Amino acid sequence: MLTKNKTVISKVYIKSPYSGLEVPFKKITQTNTTSEDGVVQNPDLLVYDTSGPLSDPNFQPHVKGIKKLRNEWVKSRKGNVTQMHYAKKGIVTEEMEYVAVRENALLDQAKHLNINSNKPTDLPNEITPDYVLEEVKSGRAIIPANIRHTELEPMIIGTNFLVKVNSNIGNSALKSSIEEEVEKLVWSTKWGADTVMDLSTGKNIHQTREDIIRNSPVPIGTVPIYQALEKVDGKAEELNWNVYRETLIEQAEQGVDYFTIHAGVLLRYVPLTANRLTGIVSRGGSIMASWCLAHHQENFLYTHFDDICEIMKAYDISFSLGDGLRPGSIADANDEAQFSELETLGELTLKAWKHDVQVMIEGPGHVSMDQIKENVIKEKELCNDAPFYTLGPLTTDIAPGYDHITSAIGATEIGRYGTAMLCYVTPKEHLGLPNKEDVKEGLIAYKIAAHAADLAKGHKGSYVRDYLLSKARFEFRWEDQFNLGLDPETARSYHDETLPKDSGKTAHFCSMCGPKFCSMKISQDIKKKHGDEIQFIEVGMQEKSKEFIESGHNLYRKV
Amino acid sequence: MLTKNKTVISKVYIKSPYSGLEVPFKKITQTNTTSEDGVVQNPDLLVYDTSGPLSDPNFQPHVKGIKKLRNEWVKSRKGNVTQMHYAKKGIVTEEMEYVAVRENALLDQAKHLNINSNKPTDLPNEITPDYVLEEVKSGRAIIPANIRHTELEPMIIGTNFLVKVNSNIGNSALKSSIEEEVEKLVWSTKWGADTVMDLSTGKNIHQTREDIIRNSPVPIGTVPIYQALEKVDGKAEELNWNVYRETLIEQAEQGVDYFTIHAGVLLRYVPLTANRLTGIVSRGGSIMASWCLAHHQENFLYTHFDDICEIMKAYDISFSLGDGLRPGSIADANDEAQFSELETLGELTLKAWKHDVQVMIEGPGHVSMDQIKENVIKEKELCNDAPFYTLGPLTTDIAPGYDHITSAIGATEIGRYGTAMLCYVTPKEHLGLPNKEDVKEGLIAYKIAAHAADLAKGHKGSYVRDYLLSKARFEFRWEDQFNLGLDPETARSYHDETLPKDSGKTAHFCSMCGPKFCSMKISQDIKKKHGDEIQFIEVGMQEKSKEFIESGHNLYRKV
Repeated sequence: MLTKNKTVISKVYIKSPYSGLEVPFKKITQTNTTSEDGVVQNPDLLVYDTSGPLSDPNFQPHVKGIKKLRNEWVKSRKGNVTQMHYAKKGIVTEEMEYVAVRENALLDQAKHLNINSNKPTDLPNEITPDYVLEEVKSGRAIIPANIRHTELEPMIIGTNFLVKVNSNIGNSALKSSIEEEVEKLVWSTKWGADTVMDLSTGKNIHQTREDIIRNSPVPIGTVPIYQALEKVDGKAEELNWNVYRETLIEQAEQGVDYFTIHAGVLLRYVPLTANRLTGIVSRGGSIMASWCLAHHQENFLYTHFDDICEIMKAYDISFSLGDGLRPGSIADANDEAQFSELETLGELTLKAWKHDVQVMIEGPGHVSMDQIKENVIKEKELCNDAPFYTLGPLTTDIAPGYDHITSAIGATEIGRYGTAMLCYVTPKEHLGLPNKEDVKEGLIAYKIAAHAADLAKGHKGSYVRDYLLSKARFEFRWEDQFNLGLDPETARSYHDETLPKDSGKTAHFCSMCGPKFCSMKISQDIKKKHGDEIQFIEVGMQEKSKEFIESGHNLYRKV
Repeated sequence: MLTKNKTVISKVYIKSPYSGLEVPFKKITQTNTTSEDGVVQNPDLLVYDTSGPLSDPNFQPHVKGIKKLRNEWVKSRKGNVTQMHYAKKGIVTEEMEYVAVRENALLDQAKHLNINSNKPTDLPNEITPDYVLEEVKSGRAIIPANIRHTELEPMIIGTNFLVKVNSNIGNSALKSSIEEEVEKLVWSTKWGADTVMDLSTGKNIHQTREDIIRNSPVPIGTVPIYQALEKVDGKAEELNWNVYRETLIEQAEQGVDYFTIHAGVLLRYVPLTANRLTGIVSRGGSIMASWCLAHHQENFLYTHFDDICEIMKAYDISFSLGDGLRPGSIADANDEAQFSELETLGELTLKAWKHDVQVMIEGPGHVSMDQIKENVIKEKELCNDAPFYTLGPLTTDIAPGYDHITSAIGATEIGRYGTAMLCYVTPKEHLGLPNKEDVKEGLIAYKIAAHAADLAKGHKGSYVRDYLLSKARFEFRWEDQFNLGLDPETARSYHDETLPKDSGKTAHFCSMCGPKFCSMKISQDIKKKHGDEIQFIEVGMQEKSKEFIESGHNLYRKV
């Protein structure tokens, strides 16, 4: 039954084998392989899909927002409603089941298709709701899911799951429009953002956030100190616990899923930044440092940490413990200020866990390639394996305009050693506010980094996509190659530039080299024309190989 | 004397302290730093410049070509004229002196400015002509410099020097224009290509190459089998030693500086590719495999290797021993075919060195992040530390349209472990022929990779540029920041998008966050307003620190 011979990308929902929950995927249907040996059907591939109802071509963002998937799940939850709390009680939540199905799909397909890189790996072979529960319970993974953000399609952040990517959006005093920010949200999830941070600091902060959350299928993070600072007219020294508390509750009520809180910027760490080349480059960090110095008091986010936990556990908001003292240049990487703060974040992690509040830890920043691994090792040790969430890092400072690339390099490196989520950097970093195109560029660079990290970690599911795409490439199934890629539109348009639209898509040679110089074509021909001969040489070689081994010769000469 | 307060990029020539040779650099002049403490002059920075006479704004490429810098140097050279030959005789050539001055400039400035990352490193503190001689003599570095390419500004490729970048240009049967290719050459050197390969396979191969070489200040590499194949109408089985030999001499006479020669694709290795997912993806590799099978004979490039060396030493053409069996997908990385060929390339390296012919070794390809380091280790061991020259590698196959990024990640990783030159990949890889914009995108991505690798290797000179740019950034010297970057034009235009042209360039806040949320500004203010307080806390902390140490407490808690 070879009826399917069209390449299509569609949205499908898979019923969970546990309770029947429906979990969304993007399905890539491939064309058949046609050769002299006949026609062979190529498998469909289900890939992780972050776009939610937004990927419906008819979807228009609006105030009422998207479907409230979790309404029924959360309506009877009371008291401490965190996923960690349930996990510790041994209760598998709908969220845990949902993420298990999401994360297991690629592993399942790899098994089913028998496509495996066979690398040694610490990652699990199968992800079940019970496995998710254990990871959340131990604090090694978090499911950021405010009970007021019922539009959310739950996802998980942890070393033992697929590496995730965050996109930052939000206006500033220099540029403002609610519509534009909601559009950036939709756009972000289209290109694979697993979470989105609304970093607005301009006008209409409250309403912008409201429209973003009501339309978001992915967790939304914020940095509440930004809005608190607006409330005191931008004067850091006038900040206080009451203004901050009120802001936390306002945002919690709206449904923010995780808060970046710079509670590790302690008074005694501020002087450690005095001789840095680029001082403090985190906005939240510099605000809190300024406050500490102005009052000569300890950071009120630190002294009120238990109060903050009380608020967060009532909504199940996760901590993203901010790295206010992250390095802002290669020169300042891995210094005392940075690692001192990290130690305090570890202390706060344990405190949050006592409240069953979920925690991830933010990380740098700007770090040269040789100093990146140390960051993951230290974070795991100091913060008891809480998930690490890093900004890049940028591996050099010399390419303003290309920091999505300088940092995708660092993100891959930090990801492969266990960082759970990578915060994207756009080409506009250090230069201006990203527009839609920048958001896309940043996201693609980071989807690459996350996937390259998954491959390096030996994730058995992630390898399937590389395999199928390469097979499509080798067989000149151009449309399949495009659709299996991260950005089919761009790939197709690049191909169109060199080869005419229709003929090119069935061309049995690469658009780069032309027919005579197409190595793939020659390589296929070799197999076709010389199959018998290869067989012959192989047999001869096996004999030689036997002699070789028997002679005790060492393959690799030492010189 | 603070007369300079303009940011300018200019071209300068520095006289060698040895014989007075003039060596070109790009000079970046910075503005002054103005603060309450007064005005401080910022240093000029001399950076490596590959653009040759082409960066003269009045330059027009033409048939006669650029200045013949090396005419006098080479005119009396006879017999074996390779740099390795002279090095073995203890003779410092003009080329060696020239590259010493080029490579030492950044190290010298780092010392002079006392800006140093203080990382442990295997790299030298100073590069002298004698040091260059030793590196060339040992085969650890090469200076590709055909005596017929007198327009060349010599450069060196080796692990202990700055990591280099190659750009590929050249037409195909599908797209052809000599002018366009010469323009791509000029464009490549503008964006920092250290060498350029002309991979033309279309019409007018000879004349295209002629115009490229006559206008090129950087070494030109080719893959002679492409033109040889054209001579036998694209029929691989009709290739033979005579046609190939004639092609080598034709190209040698024109002045090609290095030849990619796939002499390691042995008959017995071809069957090793039969079960690969993507077979043979090197054009030269597939042509030679096809020939071997058709004749059931050993690769004539292998059997005639000594004859090839005889030709190459008469012109001082370097080998770029081709990796015809490199993997074309993550699935095929680091397999037996690939490493068997590498072993043969090691054998051929020793053979070439007997003729005093310089050698570098080509490498993959498509390799996941965790398998990259192994490639460098094997290459060094099997090929006796001959410089490694790799294509990427791509760290995932799933992003057609973005392979400059998938591969810049791998290039950084392979570069940091000692790969000497990185062959760029453009966004069009696998999809079409790169246009000018693609060439630029590919080059910037690879300049980033090369620089990030230099930083990771602890290169004491490369760190200066990051340092100065970050300082300019922290002090809101926008124009200096742009000019110190790899692409001032793009950085400037991105900044313009957010802030109005003139006011923005003196703005004391980031265009991203606006005045109130500028961490850099707050950080500067902290230092200004709270300097005394920081001092006070610091003194207190020193006492605490003393107590801490005396109490024998361990900073990093073990949990």
